[in-house]
Amino acid sequence: MQLKLIALLVSAAAAQAIGDTRHKLLPPRLRANGQAGLDAQLSSRQLEASKAESGCSDGTITTTAPKSNIFAGLTDDEFADTTAFLHQQKFLNLTAVSNATAWDNIIVTIDLLQPNKSDAINYLDNGAPAPPRYAHATVQFGATLEPYVQEYQVGPLPITNQSAVTELNYIYNSGKGKQRIYNADAASIATFQYQVGTQVANITSRLINGTAIGSATDTLLIGGNDPVIHELNRTVQWNQFYAINTGFAVDETLLPTGLEFKTDITGRDPSKWSVIGWYYGGQFWPTTRAFMTAANSPDFKSLGLAVDGSFGSTDSQGAQLPHDDLYPPTALQPQGTRYAIDMEQQYVEWMGFSFYIGFTRDTGMQLHNVEYQGQRVIYELGLQEALAHYASIDPLQSATAYLDSYYGFGPSSFELVQGFDCPAYATYVNASFYTQEASHTHANAICLFEYDPGYPISRHIASDYTTVSKHADLILRSVATVGNYDYMFEYAFHIDGSIHVTVRASGYIQGAYYAENEEYGFHIHDVLSGNMHDHVLNYKLDLDVLGTKNSLMRSNVVPATVQYNWSPGVPRNTMKVERDFITNENDAQINWDYNGATTYTVVNKDQKNQYGEYRGYTVTPASGSIVHLTVQNSTDLGSSANWATNHLYAVQQHDSEPRSAYPYNNQDTNKPAVDFGKFINGESLDQEDIVLYFNLGMHHLPQTADLPVTVFTTAQSSMLIIPQNYIDYNPSKATIHNVRVNFNNGVVTDIDTFGTVVPQCQLDFGSVAANLSGYTGEIITPKYPYDPSAAQVANPGAA
Amino acid sequence: MQLKLIALLVSAAAAQAIGDTRHKLLPPRLRANGQAGLDAQLSSRQLEASKAESGCSDGTITTTAPKSNIFAGLTDDEFADTTAFLHQQKFLNLTAVSNATAWDNIIVTIDLLQPNKSDAINYLDNGAPAPPRYAHATVQFGATLEPYVQEYQVGPLPITNQSAVTELNYIYNSGKGKQRIYNADAASIATFQYQVGTQVANITSRLINGTAIGSATDTLLIGGNDPVIHELNRTVQWNQFYAINTGFAVDETLLPTGLEFKTDITGRDPSKWSVIGWYYGGQFWPTTRAFMTAANSPDFKSLGLAVDGSFGSTDSQGAQLPHDDLYPPTALQPQGTRYAIDMEQQYVEWMGFSFYIGFTRDTGMQLHNVEYQGQRVIYELGLQEALAHYASIDPLQSATAYLDSYYGFGPSSFELVQGFDCPAYATYVNASFYTQEASHTHANAICLFEYDPGYPISRHIASDYTTVSKHADLILRSVATVGNYDYMFEYAFHIDGSIHVTVRASGYIQGAYYAENEEYGFHIHDVLSGNMHDHVLNYKLDLDVLGTKNSLMRSNVVPATVQYNWSPGVPRNTMKVERDFITNENDAQINWDYNGATTYTVVNKDQKNQYGEYRGYTVTPASGSIVHLTVQNSTDLGSSANWATNHLYAVQQHDSEPRSAYPYNNQDTNKPAVDFGKFINGESLDQEDIVLYFNLGMHHLPQTADLPVTVFTTAQSSMLIIPQNYIDYNPSKATIHNVRVNFNNGVVTDIDTFGTVVPQCQLDFGSVAANLSGYTGEIITPKYPYDPSAAQVANPGAA
Repeated sequence: MQLKLIALLVSAAAAQAIGDTRHKLLPPRLRANGQAGLDAQLSSRQLEASKAESGCSDGTITTTAPKSNIFAGLTDDEFADTTAFLHQQKFLNLTAVSNATAWDNIIVTIDLLQPNKSDAINYLDNGAPAPPRYAHATVQFGATLEPYVQEYQVGPLPITNQSAVTELNYIYNSGKGKQRIYNADAASIATFQYQVGTQVANITSRLINGTAIGSATDTLLIGGNDPVIHELNRTVQWNQFYAINTGFAVDETLLPTGLEFKTDITGRDPSKWSVIGWYYGGQFWPTTRAFMTAANSPDFKSLGLAVDGSFGSTDSQGAQLPHDDLYPPTALQPQGTRYAIDMEQQYVEWMGFSFYIGFTRDTGMQLHNVEYQGQRVIYELGLQEALAHYASIDPLQSATAYLDSYYGFGPSSFELVQGFDCPAYATYVNASFYTQEASHTHANAICLFEYDPGYPISRHIASDYTTVSKHADLILRSVATVGNYDYMFEYAFHIDGSIHVTVRASGYIQGAYYAENEEYGFHIHDVLSGNMHDHVLNYKLDLDVLGTKNSLMRSNVVPATVQYNWSPGVPRNTMKVERDFITNENDAQINWDYNGATTYTVVNKDQKNQYGEYRGYTVTPASGSIVHLTVQNSTDLGSSANWATNHLYAVQQHDSEPRSAYPYNNQDTNKPAVDFGKFINGESLDQEDIVLYFNLGMHHLPQTADLPVTVFTTAQSSMLIIPQNYIDYNPSKATIHNVRVNFNNGVVTDIDTFGTVVPQCQLDFGSVAANLSGYTGEIITPKYPYDPSAAQVANPGAA
Repeated sequence: MQLKLIALLVSAAAAQAIGDTRHKLLPPRLRANGQAGLDAQLSSRQLEASKAESGCSDGTITTTAPKSNIFAGLTDDEFADTTAFLHQQKFLNLTAVSNATAWDNIIVTIDLLQPNKSDAINYLDNGAPAPPRYAHATVQFGATLEPYVQEYQVGPLPITNQSAVTELNYIYNSGKGKQRIYNADAASIATFQYQVGTQVANITSRLINGTAIGSATDTLLIGGNDPVIHELNRTVQWNQFYAINTGFAVDETLLPTGLEFKTDITGRDPSKWSVIGWYYGGQFWPTTRAFMTAANSPDFKSLGLAVDGSFGSTDSQGAQLPHDDLYPPTALQPQGTRYAIDMEQQYVEWMGFSFYIGFTRDTGMQLHNVEYQGQRVIYELGLQEALAHYASIDPLQSATAYLDSYYGFGPSSFELVQGFDCPAYATYVNASFYTQEASHTHANAICLFEYDPGYPISRHIASDYTTVSKHADLILRSVATVGNYDYMFEYAFHIDGSIHVTVRASGYIQGAYYAENEEYGFHIHDVLSGNMHDHVLNYKLDLDVLGTKNSLMRSNVVPATVQYNWSPGVPRNTMKVERDFITNENDAQINWDYNGATTYTVVNKDQKNQYGEYRGYTVTPASGSIVHLTVQNSTDLGSSANWATNHLYAVQQHDSEPRSAYPYNNQDTNKPAVDFGKFINGESLDQEDIVLYFNLGMHHLPQTADLPVTVFTTAQSSMLIIPQNYIDYNPSKATIHNVRVNFNNGVVTDIDTFGTVVPQCQLDFGSVAANLSGYTGEIITPKYPYDPSAAQVANPGAA
């Protein structure tokens, strides 16, 4: 008992030395509680805890990653060398992007080719050298009547005469890393759209109060649907006039005018493109002539104008809230970080967890090699694709089904606003990617911080004591703004060994014109329909539970009627838990039970715990809705998003199936280069390397509360990854941020704070506000021609 | 523009005056942004905001409730007067509790009889006088062979010669506020159990290493199942020996020995009670003789001993976590509360919300008359009942289905641990109730505080600006510890007008002995099974949307194949939203859709918004699992918990149906005084006063991570109540805790902070630790005989 008492005296003295007498010194221990066995076990660690600092500080603990981050992106030099090496390849016939036309071949993007898991595991676990590095280059072939992209593997890096550029085909289950594309002539298409806008300028002036003729004084813009439509052997697109914002807020997706036209943009010769239909207010005209004739008749009336206004402004407005002039409660970090970070390797350690941060052009922030208590539990965790599928009476909205990795979650992950997007005390990490023959760095695009969620992790009160244990989460966060929508991606690590994967949505909805749209959404502003759409976001979760050989256990809580031997003659209506294994991919296309009756756990059948139960990790819906796509056999999507038809999938890991999606899947949705449906081909899940794909998302039925922007409060969806029988107790027992108050007859007899020292110091509250004048946006370094000393700071912001 | 600039200059100057030059002064506005229309609208409120204090303070804003809290409990004097008045009633033939035996009539409890809604609305809305106050007394009639409780109405209060004691029957749909009870002879039953324990002491010593003979040196205790069993016209109970804790932690529910016996306790004559069965390790013996014969045979082996140890201790233990000696991030409240409270009336105002807090013996903390933007949206919101239904191979666990309002959420709501259960800066509110002819006050049993959940409420970035708006929640919280389990109840108000109802569970599981229990749970410690059970918690939500005449709208997102006029010859696979009304109670026994496709909104058909949509409030699952009871036609429950068979119900409001449950429903589960099933009787929901009942909960399949106690992280369930088309915009726009950063070419050109002033001051971090030496427990004031000056402080803690 001696050690324990000393520890507490030291703590109290240290606190007293700098204490403020007005405030809250912890009372000295009043008596030792009589449980020698447990106390002896606890005492040594409490002594250690007493060494804790009692002052405030704001340091960041650094560490050195045990292995280099083989998942991180390419270095500036690697980008430049790869670019130059590609340009050397005669067969590619590349033109520098800065000089290129639509009829040239260009490098669209370069990223790290993620190592095969088999190679990475050898490096991480078996002491093998790091796998050779390769770049993954996407080259657009524009000098042809049928433009396409082809994926290439470039390396090994650094470039030597051993290096080569070879087609990258094995990770695309169409058989080839090639995709016919329809966006090569985007500039010509825009020109064509403005020609149409000019042709009907008189009508648009009268009907929808503006013109879109390609002039700086335009008050309308024209937007086309995505994905482009392939029907009846033609390439077609629906286009709509939108009012341009008049305030600062770029809120055009709230300003559809309802006037739409259909273009046939088959082939590459703009002179052969045509307008093949018009739509307004539920009516369809097959030709421009027919539309103009109708529209010029005197009884053809506008159904209402799209007018920008404060309803789309994100500035503070409206009657001031009572006492909102006072500053709200805010979290401070009194003693610096309690996590350790290797900034160069983007490697983090916290409370028994460690992980590497990855970042790719296609999918943004990712997690790699998540270890817990010294053992890998997750090889890879990250977003694969985000679908936003609309439905509407009007053709543009009906034909809209964004697959956002086309735009890229990397380029869409902008600088975070410190003190608002994350606490000012967070650690901010830069994110880099490559497009347009330049590497781009978004400063402070990822934040990492510890947070108290506002409730304890556990507690109990009994007749003579109460004990409460603090919560602590480590949160890794980024926000990707893909056009109108802001997705907040978050991985939260809990001190109980669980991991919480969350996505939240804010930003502007893409509304529809209100007319005739009652079956597709609420009427939410003058001429605006809060158009229905499904968000489905697919994540890859490659759990490795005590090795890569795993199985998928299902636990199902079911009603049962049982005649027990102890209840003769009285059959009892009760329940049971049925446990079995899903042993084949075909049986692992899973929807969550409406009553939460079924639990799925990845276990290692060869690794039972001491009580004979399988050690494993469970995945379970945690917050918001978990949805699969409502639309069945979507006309818009074809087979480009077959991961969206169920909630959860388990498949066998293959190096040839690294990702469920592909950025160019939106170019011809019936002929995707990666069809997730083909992942499911009857393979065994019995002690194999299992990869889960799960969906987050929501059916979004926007209403007036989505104006001006959707709020994260109600638009979120998350999944928990929870250890199940994995450790023999709850690991959160280990935290010293716990208290036991013993009492008797209304008097406190003992307080055990387990060595916690509350810093007795003054904190500058002003530090909760970061200096935002340093908001720098992205840093662009051109790679061709490459000048390593040149770093150009340019305008950040959504594309 | 003039006003706006002045406002910002004032703010900056105020900040500068006390500023710390090291830190974070907001940069001055660099330029005014050019949007005259919006700016003019915003400017006056920003000037107002500039009056904000720039220093720190810790005040609590007080207010005066517009009406007195007619839902709050009785006063001390009312308790005393009611007690005395009851004792005057000869027909009750009462004995003071302190002198009473099981064969006397006693007052069990007194509480406020909640006013009828019809009367309350008249008072709240129509200026009628406050409804007369009545006490609700529960009297136990022990002086009879068939003891029972009868509910009484006592009043009006204060007691005058107009006052009377009358049977309270109209709120019990059995027709009578009367329930035959089986707990009157609890002391005799305990004596009988120890007689059995004495009879088998030699066997328990050998088999399970202890004895339970009713002595102070007992190392075992005996617990019986709840609810008591009525089968074959007998009253029976299963009882189990548990090891008594040897450490400080009262963790007996982790220490079942697996040895159980069945008692026939029919009638009130203990001499006629008998033991009618024994159970151990899957075997059943119909008599004590048979069991003793078997147990005394040499080959009858113990299946393992229940031994207490550190696995049940809630003290910090195990290897210290890295950097856990540092103090974690913690929220501080720099300028005092931003809510206003009338402590006497337990009335709160915050950001457009106002509400009254209620507290009852049966159900604990409740909300009444929640108004938003000056209009009632909720008449009543609160817990009704919590069910914990077990299933097991062993008879005691199989026959366990707690209905916890029997124990009472009021008496179970103990003092919170400041700085751990809620922030130290929270406002703590006392809770009072009456049992055993004394009023009890649990100091600080409710906390109220504002909290930043760690992510913004909304954000957007565009090409030249980014804007992010802070979140703020007002949280009202209490914790009820009913025996082994700690339920954390929480109501969180969001600045977007939504309300979040959460329950979390911690504390000890009630485990089963492991032997033969594989079909009912994981084996989680030496001889412990993490016995499966369903938690189902029923809440009443009486929404009043723009008056009491409301309807229940259903919005269903469904796949559809449509031939549009604009897509000739190409039928499209898409989706629609189908909206209709559920117009009858019989159709409103609802389960949530597995894919979240269906939304339920309480609307007022007579109150469309300006766009023709119904203004309403939606209820939707928010986090964790939402469950109904797995067991169908439970043998344990009979018809005592018919609210547990679905997720959500809508019924017509009746003053005669104030609550879905009744504390004594567990006494004879086939004959409950309140059967929720009878609420559903075909009444209209078309523009009627609709009351929703929804369930929270979880299927709990405890595993090793539930040791020592279940963690709130993974054991939570919540519901969101969200305005839908209720206001024409999102109310969170109004907060000034918003920022817009304009930038151009990597340089910040403007920062608008909307008048927010960040306090530039030093905060004493030590204040995050409350002084826990003041933990006082409950204050008991005896009411019979009554001495208003006597307040006795006694031992708090679980019963």
